[in-house]
Amino acid sequence: MYSKDLQEMFDAEHIKPGDIIKIEWQGNVLEGALMPKSEAGSEDTIILKLKNGYNIGVNYHNIKLKKISSKKLNKFPFSNYIPNPELPNISIIWTGGTIGSKIDYIISGVSMTVKPEELLYYIPELAKIANINIIPLFSISSEDMTFIEWQKISEEVIKALNNGSRGIVITHGTDTMHYTASALAFMLQNLNAPIVLTGSQRSSDRGSSDAFFNLISAVRFAANSDIAEVGICMHSNSSDDEMLFIRGVKARKMHTSRRDAFRAINDKPIASITKDGNIKYLSSYKKILDIKEVAVAKTGFEPIVLIKVHPNSDPEIIDYYMQKGIRGFIIEGTGLGHTPVSVEHEGFSWLPYIKNAVANGVVVGMTSQCLYGRVNENVYKNLRILKNAGVIFCEDMLPETAYVKLGWLLANYNVEKAKEMLKKNLVGEIKNRTIYDEFLI
Amino acid sequence: MYSKDLQEMFDAEHIKPGDIIKIEWQGNVLEGALMPKSEAGSEDTIILKLKNGYNIGVNYHNIKLKKISSKKLNKFPFSNYIPNPELPNISIIWTGGTIGSKIDYIISGVSMTVKPEELLYYIPELAKIANINIIPLFSISSEDMTFIEWQKISEEVIKALNNGSRGIVITHGTDTMHYTASALAFMLQNLNAPIVLTGSQRSSDRGSSDAFFNLISAVRFAANSDIAEVGICMHSNSSDDEMLFIRGVKARKMHTSRRDAFRAINDKPIASITKDGNIKYLSSYKKILDIKEVAVAKTGFEPIVLIKVHPNSDPEIIDYYMQKGIRGFIIEGTGLGHTPVSVEHEGFSWLPYIKNAVANGVVVGMTSQCLYGRVNENVYKNLRILKNAGVIFCEDMLPETAYVKLGWLLANYNVEKAKEMLKKNLVGEIKNRTIYDEFLI
Repeated sequence: MYSKDLQEMFDAEHIKPGDIIKIEWQGNVLEGALMPKSEAGSEDTIILKLKNGYNIGVNYHNIKLKKISSKKLNKFPFSNYIPNPELPNISIIWTGGTIGSKIDYIISGVSMTVKPEELLYYIPELAKIANINIIPLFSISSEDMTFIEWQKISEEVIKALNNGSRGIVITHGTDTMHYTASALAFMLQNLNAPIVLTGSQRSSDRGSSDAFFNLISAVRFAANSDIAEVGICMHSNSSDDEMLFIRGVKARKMHTSRRDAFRAINDKPIASITKDGNIKYLSSYKKILDIKEVAVAKTGFEPIVLIKVHPNSDPEIIDYYMQKGIRGFIIEGTGLGHTPVSVEHEGFSWLPYIKNAVANGVVVGMTSQCLYGRVNENVYKNLRILKNAGVIFCEDMLPETAYVKLGWLLANYNVEKAKEMLKKNLVGEIKNRTIYDEFLI
Repeated sequence: MYSKDLQEMFDAEHIKPGDIIKIEWQGNVLEGALMPKSEAGSEDTIILKLKNGYNIGVNYHNIKLKKISSKKLNKFPFSNYIPNPELPNISIIWTGGTIGSKIDYIISGVSMTVKPEELLYYIPELAKIANINIIPLFSISSEDMTFIEWQKISEEVIKALNNGSRGIVITHGTDTMHYTASALAFMLQNLNAPIVLTGSQRSSDRGSSDAFFNLISAVRFAANSDIAEVGICMHSNSSDDEMLFIRGVKARKMHTSRRDAFRAINDKPIASITKDGNIKYLSSYKKILDIKEVAVAKTGFEPIVLIKVHPNSDPEIIDYYMQKGIRGFIIEGTGLGHTPVSVEHEGFSWLPYIKNAVANGVVVGMTSQCLYGRVNENVYKNLRILKNAGVIFCEDMLPETAYVKLGWLLANYNVEKAKEMLKKNLVGEIKNRTIYDEFLI
């Protein structure tokens, strides 16, 4: 809601969101489209979209308002979008999430089954970076993503690469973006292009800015980097000056609302990028030139189960899931990779259930709920007991990544091969050693 | 294993760990007990425990070795331990974990059913801080702790306070220390003393030092602070110069092996302490003087279930546990507190199962697997759907803390009261607002 005074000024001129209006104050004149009131914005501020595509906020005090013309739906300055042969071709796969709804919102209700010229009207910077091909795949909230979407996105990525895209951007809700990024990292074989997931955090503080900056930076990584990996492009810090490219299999959303919520866990970000598009590489990565094979999608996925153990946790859950036909478990153990194993209190030990599962050909992988650091099958007796029971200790892999990896392995390989590959680094999900300084950064 | 040369020197003198030996080199003379070889220590270094209780490491090159006397079991310089009436009385409740085995190890196999004089012989600093009463409660690994131990520790704390202890130290394995700390925080009513949990991280780099420094600092907090809360006393950083007192209900082990693994999540540490014992208060806390009532233990606990949801996660687990009689669930949702709710793919939505649980009087609490930040029942439509289904959004509470809290509430209050209290701050587990700067520190 606008303040009463401001609303009256609008009403006097019959001004509605989307209308082209003129604002004058102290010799200044601005002309542009009135943006809809955002919930978070000040009730005294008018947000105007200027012809160059930028938004500007103006306090209504001491201004004069005039309506120039009414809102024109679906009218854009470019009637035909002509690709620039000197720019790389980038595909943006649209899957939903806050970034979609935010850009939707700015575009005042225009559906995101957009033509490139529509997006470019609102984010004109993109036209200078790449020729944009938009693939509106679906509009699904992050929490409702399943492996079925992972498979479709993978196939769409391969299709777009085969159609000449130099890199791919995927817009996605943030909550499960790291699960999807991990799935793509395993499903996309011989990947020879940057695959960049980006989204937008709810940020009540600064309106839409992170959606635009995130998308622009993601397109830049896709167009200009030589990274042949799947990564997440989100804010480096809480100001709007730098974005990161974090390896998907090492990324985790670590805050419910901060725009820099995504962190590299047990890893360094692969690269950073400034507002001006300067890419700085921060650690080693697979390069496009190193990949000679053709990229293909190996999309098989078999749902398995991720279990967090804790004091009093119920080990019978293993039996329950085995009866449902589950062939894999990833345990989020405590510390270096523990479950309860003592027989002191009857019913609390996970050992007999794990032994039974392994004896029946079920794969049990161990990760740590600490998140940072590395599980270790040797330090304590209780760890060696689990190792001897057949538990596979997943090194410094994130629980979420291990979950996605084991589900993918079991669908595509036999059990013995899956066990072997679970412990082996495939796409950067396991690092040889733990770098102490990578804690909480 | 010592190096061959060093072992031969020991053998020539028939020297075994625990023996009193004399080392001479370049005019220097040291006399003390030979400590057992630590796995991590150099194979060329002799660790000697001097008469003043301190350990010293000496490289064997160019030294002369002589045996003074054989190991004397259970012989200590103080035959009778006389309390100092000017010092506060502190009880140390021994529960097991690495700290116990480390100190055990240093004391060369002396069982930790120790008398105070034994501990004080090895950590003489303690005698200057407080009169120490040792309560050897049990010797249980962190991963095997259950609510039964939480109850026993709570009762022991109350007993020790009634017996005149000014504060309590609890030595504990680190992996589940934050679960135990949360349980004590809820179980100990009208708490009017500092209750300080401490332990020792596996640290292959520096032998036993963190166990001693941790224990000394914990005793100092218990003896000298005016904090009337349950907290965890562990390293502030990876050097050995500062320890923190972190509110138990806001603490989490965030690294598998770093000595500063414990972090305050969505909170500031309550206090820090230097090697010299200088306490600095860092945020507000309950003070001893503010509590007028007598502390009592309310130890009821009913095991509930903590579930982490993720893409493809199976909502039928709710039904399974309800059939087992479970009356409470804490969900680790994605982002701001989501479960899948879409009906697009059959079988993935958690909504019907949650609705059914709530309709049957089961309490469903929502937290976030992001860990940092706060769940929010209003931002998105899918969040409001869960709220309307009866899910209780647990603000900025940690999933582990919410699990302990709901289990404690359901054992001690009726369902309606439990629901009301779950969302209300009781002992610092919920803060009114999220401080952005408390991310990853």
